[in-house]
Amino acid sequence: MPVRWAFEEVGQPYNVRLVTFAEMKEPAHRALQPFGQIPTYEEGSLALFESGAIVLHIAEKHPGLLPHDPNARARAIAWMFAAKATVEPSIIESEAAEYLEGDEPWTEKRMPLIQDRIRARLKDLSRRLGDADWLDAEFSAGDLLMVLVLRRLEDTNILNEFPNLAAYVARAQGRPAYKRAYDAQHAVFTKAAVPA
Amino acid sequence: MPVRWAFEEVGQPYNVRLVTFAEMKEPAHRALQPFGQIPTYEEGSLALFESGAIVLHIAEKHPGLLPHDPNARARAIAWMFAAKATVEPSIIESEAAEYLEGDEPWTEKRMPLIQDRIRARLKDLSRRLGDADWLDAEFSAGDLLMVLVLRRLEDTNILNEFPNLAAYVARAQGRPAYKRAYDAQHAVFTKAAVPA
Repeated sequence: MPVRWAFEEVGQPYNVRLVTFAEMKEPAHRALQPFGQIPTYEEGSLALFESGAIVLHIAEKHPGLLPHDPNARARAIAWMFAAKATVEPSIIESEAAEYLEGDEPWTEKRMPLIQDRIRARLKDLSRRLGDADWLDAEFSAGDLLMVLVLRRLEDTNILNEFPNLAAYVARAQGRPAYKRAYDAQHAVFTKAAVPA
Repeated sequence: MPVRWAFEEVGQPYNVRLVTFAEMKEPAHRALQPFGQIPTYEEGSLALFESGAIVLHIAEKHPGLLPHDPNARARAIAWMFAAKATVEPSIIESEAAEYLEGDEPWTEKRMPLIQDRIRARLKDLSRRLGDADWLDAEFSAGDLLMVLVLRRLEDTNILNEFPNLAAYVARAQGRPAYKRAYDAQHAVFTKAAVPA
């Protein structure tokens, strides 16, 4: 989603190459992504990994995702790092507890502690956003990454405890570029679910 | 350390303003850092947060931390995100287990699981580094952040299980700019430890 959405925001066409979970761990994929994850990005002789870096690369090449003013541009990049390095890890921790430690006897008791750590991040984020539309005036690559991080909470009720954050995510989801990216991504899953 | 080290690598002077743990949570600091953390960065009317974003800002303004070749530059930024978004969270999880859940009955049993997740990241990183000096040819801001992330493991023995990563960290610590930054940082703690 982050790469698709970024391309849609800047109005650039792209080709998608899907990889299976098994392929993600094979040497050919690891040559592009040392940690065996997705997404990766290829453009001529350039191969990139890390969604933050890929989105930043697209944003630097095409107008639409970073402000022209140098200070506003630097702040947008700060929000990109905040999304991936400060907010997302707390959410990934809850996913790890569920998927990697779901059968452990402690997970039920730990989950409220993890959720409180997520709430602490969201409380700070909610306070900063206030009643603004976006994190720093114009919509930017920082919002793009932050919204996708917050969407990881959509199967929980936590986001609804912060109405301005829930509205912020909904506002982003209303962008035509988001819808085009979402529909294209959704079509992949729909196709994958059809038996051969 | 990341901001000091970046300034030392590019040969730019800087002023340090220390904040106490209490001040970090106050509104004046949160205006600079919404999540009540350090470091922050101020330059004229620009205020930034997130060490990754601050280091990138310094690297874009002054030569020495990003390659000139556009593709190599993009890859260096990918390593910056990888350090902060992919490698560091696994290490922070072990710190959180110790500091936030140290008294919980499950922590002793969980710790090996967390350490195995750290090892999985380090194994991938070690394989990619191989016998190279730096992650992508020249030393870059990507190495700077990755080395500081790996240094968080220095009170454990995990890093020594990956000799090329231990040597990589030592190689970075041998850089004159690292030493100047470390000495300056160390002097703060030495001063702080002297009773008034």
